[in-house]
Amino acid sequence: MASNCIFCRIAGGEIPSAAVYEDEYFKAIMDIAPAAKGHILILPKKHSDNLLELDSESAARLLAVAQKIAKAQMEELKCDGINLLQNNGEAAGQTVNHFHIHLIPRYKSDQVKISWQQGAYADGEAAGLAEKIAKRIN
Amino acid sequence: MASNCIFCRIAGGEIPSAAVYEDEYFKAIMDIAPAAKGHILILPKKHSDNLLELDSESAARLLAVAQKIAKAQMEELKCDGINLLQNNGEAAGQTVNHFHIHLIPRYKSDQVKISWQQGAYADGEAAGLAEKIAKRIN
Repeated sequence: MASNCIFCRIAGGEIPSAAVYEDEYFKAIMDIAPAAKGHILILPKKHSDNLLELDSESAARLLAVAQKIAKAQMEELKCDGINLLQNNGEAAGQTVNHFHIHLIPRYKSDQVKISWQQGAYADGEAAGLAEKIAKRIN
Repeated sequence: MASNCIFCRIAGGEIPSAAVYEDEYFKAIMDIAPAAKGHILILPKKHSDNLLELDSESAARLLAVAQKIAKAQMEELKCDGINLLQNNGEAAGQTVNHFHIHLIPRYKSDQVKISWQQGAYADGEAAGLAEKIAKRIN
């Protein structure tokens, strides 16, 4: 635990939070500056900066927890959808360097922006890049 | 496998794709209309519409695969960050009703928009809503 990490302190109970779920590995809390009411963050108790460093035990358990919470959000909030979002690096919008997953309730006419201009590949370019990336996967 | 599901057909190899990774549970492919070159989709081979329906075996294995691929993207693309994004429902931007994870390479000056106006809760409101959601988590 990094004592200067706010999410370690929240996950460890040192800083109070509005928690919706807790087990041996995770604490899930209400985002205090939500995209919509009911926006939840899942924090592993074991510190990692980001997905690249996430420990294997948290990785193996996290989506099952996200699934349970997303179901509860859909039921309670009657939202139209949910984004599961996890940002790695400042360029990706990560503001706290403790791995966390956002579960963002979505509504048909809401103001959340998740969009990009669709690019394209030249003939063979995607396959060539896929091969280069594949070679780096261990 | 839903025979009219394009991601089932891609994951099963019936429709060709530029794949970067494949194992018993998943196929990971290049998004053909990428937010940035090297944008990858991870498709479970077993069909589920979304996170709420994702099977437990895929859920337990998926983040470890995402981690491996994200590391390879960072190395090969020299990107500044990565978003892991998974959309549930049309209101959340889901366009193919087969659970999939986006791994989107990010760069400091790119045009990907992932943002929202930060809301706020009245005193006690977040705790009250957390309690309601918590009661629905099984």
